Amino acid sequence: MQFTINRNLFLDNLNNVMRAISSRATIPILSGIKLDLSEQELVLTGSDTDISIEIKIPVNDDLTVESTGSIVLPARFFSEIIKKLPGKDFSFEVKESFQTKITSENTEFMINGLDANNYPRLPEIPTDAAFELSGKTFREVINETVFAVANQESRPTLNGVNFSFSSNAIKAVATDSHRLSQRTISVENGPEVKSNLVIPGNSLVEFSRIIGEKDPEITVNPGDNQVLFNIGNIAFYSRLLEGSYPDTDRLIPTSSTTQVEFDLSTLSRSLDRASLLTHESRNNVVKMNLDTDKQSVVLRGQSAEIGNVEEEIPFKSLTGDSLEIAFNPDYLRDALRASITDSIVMKFTQPLRPFTVTPAKEDVDFTQLITPVRTF
Amino acid sequence: MQFTINRNLFLDNLNNVMRAISSRATIPILSGIKLDLSEQELVLTGSDTDISIEIKIPVNDDLTVESTGSIVLPARFFSEIIKKLPGKDFSFEVKESFQTKITSENTEFMINGLDANNYPRLPEIPTDAAFELSGKTFREVINETVFAVANQESRPTLNGVNFSFSSNAIKAVATDSHRLSQRTISVENGPEVKSNLVIPGNSLVEFSRIIGEKDPEITVNPGDNQVLFNIGNIAFYSRLLEGSYPDTDRLIPTSSTTQVEFDLSTLSRSLDRASLLTHESRNNVVKMNLDTDKQSVVLRGQSAEIGNVEEEIPFKSLTGDSLEIAFNPDYLRDALRASITDSIVMKFTQPLRPFTVTPAKEDVDFTQLITPVRTF
Repeated sequence: MQFTINRNLFLDNLNNVMRAISSRATIPILSGIKLDLSEQELVLTGSDTDISIEIKIPVNDDLTVESTGSIVLPARFFSEIIKKLPGKDFSFEVKESFQTKITSENTEFMINGLDANNYPRLPEIPTDAAFELSGKTFREVINETVFAVANQESRPTLNGVNFSFSSNAIKAVATDSHRLSQRTISVENGPEVKSNLVIPGNSLVEFSRIIGEKDPEITVNPGDNQVLFNIGNIAFYSRLLEGSYPDTDRLIPTSSTTQVEFDLSTLSRSLDRASLLTHESRNNVVKMNLDTDKQSVVLRGQSAEIGNVEEEIPFKSLTGDSLEIAFNPDYLRDALRASITDSIVMKFTQPLRPFTVTPAKEDVDFTQLITPVRTF
Repeated sequence: MQFTINRNLFLDNLNNVMRAISSRATIPILSGIKLDLSEQELVLTGSDTDISIEIKIPVNDDLTVESTGSIVLPARFFSEIIKKLPGKDFSFEVKESFQTKITSENTEFMINGLDANNYPRLPEIPTDAAFELSGKTFREVINETVFAVANQESRPTLNGVNFSFSSNAIKAVATDSHRLSQRTISVENGPEVKSNLVIPGNSLVEFSRIIGEKDPEITVNPGDNQVLFNIGNIAFYSRLLEGSYPDTDRLIPTSSTTQVEFDLSTLSRSLDRASLLTHESRNNVVKMNLDTDKQSVVLRGQSAEIGNVEEEIPFKSLTGDSLEIAFNPDYLRDALRASITDSIVMKFTQPLRPFTVTPAKEDVDFTQLITPVRTF
């Protein structure tokens, strides 16, 4: 196996494969990256078993092949080495007993490789249920829900976002059972047959980074316990979470007795101040008092040791019954960070029933739900 | 105690006092910041016993006094609170039992304070041996030596930089007994009587941040076991290290048998590549082979597990005897980072004797010394 390649071209692709490499790989060979060279292309593969990434670099002016073959190299070092090589190009040659020589200008590295035959195979995923998706839309849906996934062993399905892809919409729901985020976006060319996938939060975070700021087209290939996303020359495999996702639709209240509309940044800043103190308290809880008669909203935070804070929050409108409610400020902070409008509406029923945070805009289908805390 | 102040003015000064606050204060009251208000000025004080900082804000349009007094408030929270207040100004009022009310627009914090009478007094330092210093020069000398101080309990004096201030020069030396950095800069108005101070490295790092990028005038007041630096409205106190600093002059070789001159960035990059592997090895050691007959310099790094790297380093000149020497690449990396010229000269005598790194410029008095490693 021997080739010469443009260093930047290689590095861009290597950086994407590195997203699949875990720093605590349980299977030793998975701390490595596989390089597989044919006459047509160089294939880079990385995997942490949950996520696998395969990237194909076609043979062209920037990649010349001397002889084909394959090897596995320690991922972290290999990537550090390539980053620090002096030249525009580098040469790569596998010698005896998997020793790999990497040369660039006056620098020569000799790295101990591993037999690529021992590298696990990627799953085969049928392409007959494939459908297309806008990268920008998918990234938006991910960022608006993934923060609400659970991070626990006891109910593994909650560690993922529950996606329903249909012919005209994507619906995504995530919940850790204390708060929930649900987003629906219209699409034009969704799958004919409705597809339900629960994708782990970690996979989605990495995939959203690969999508990046542009709007690349994504092909989604749903499999039985894996999903394959194709994006440009990148194949991104993620494990799917098994077990049935709870029916979250019934959790979202359909009516309310108190409604308040805030400017997003005004509310965020008040919340930041209040949580300065509550973060030091054993109970991380703020209290919001909505007085519809006096037309005032007051937020309070307290720490027995440090002191307390109290402030009136300016609002845009306040209607319905007066109410005092207590909740974890971090859940509301996350909800506000994910919000995509300048104003948001909070709707309450009772002090101990979940309340909603929605955009102050009729045509955006985005509902966040937060469970209050009992303080008496 | 009651006053109103411009928030940004207060915050700039508070941020400087915060440099003296340790996150692991052993005396509880030192996790606080003292505020002392007279009719003339507001004095902020912070201390971790090694460093103390006192800043005076004079009464003016931006600071109006209602009543004088003093209080100690929890430093970290107080500073977070001030940062997050909504308004341009804030009001500060000490109520019963040291409760302190901080108000800005609709926000009202009530913080538990402590009795300022329990705050330790700062040392009194005579001003009769005071002298002036350029902030820029002092900062330069600090940055060129402080990285080489020791970080150990066994020989505490080595944890400081040894300064000799005389009428026409500042000489600074730091060593951890494996490497040494010595810098001498000419000055015009040094002290009449030579002053020797060993100042802890940590104090110097904080003080160099307070000096900043500009060139403020510093007044140095040497005391018996403390030094006081005055800079603008800031008084910076540092503990001095006691015990005699070793005579380092005799360690610096006066002749050499091999000399090589490198471009700084060329050598730095080679060293970075070599240490990629040596950092993974039990012995963090690179080998440099200087062959004066062949006119070549080769750098090698090795890790039994990962592999090895070897490269020829381009040089500007190479004279004297051929030599192979082994050393810790991190010491040379630190020396190169502190270097202030584009080219440096390394001078060697024997494979096991310390070698020097100096600027390739006659008029810069800056010598770094590195002890090699025995590898056989």
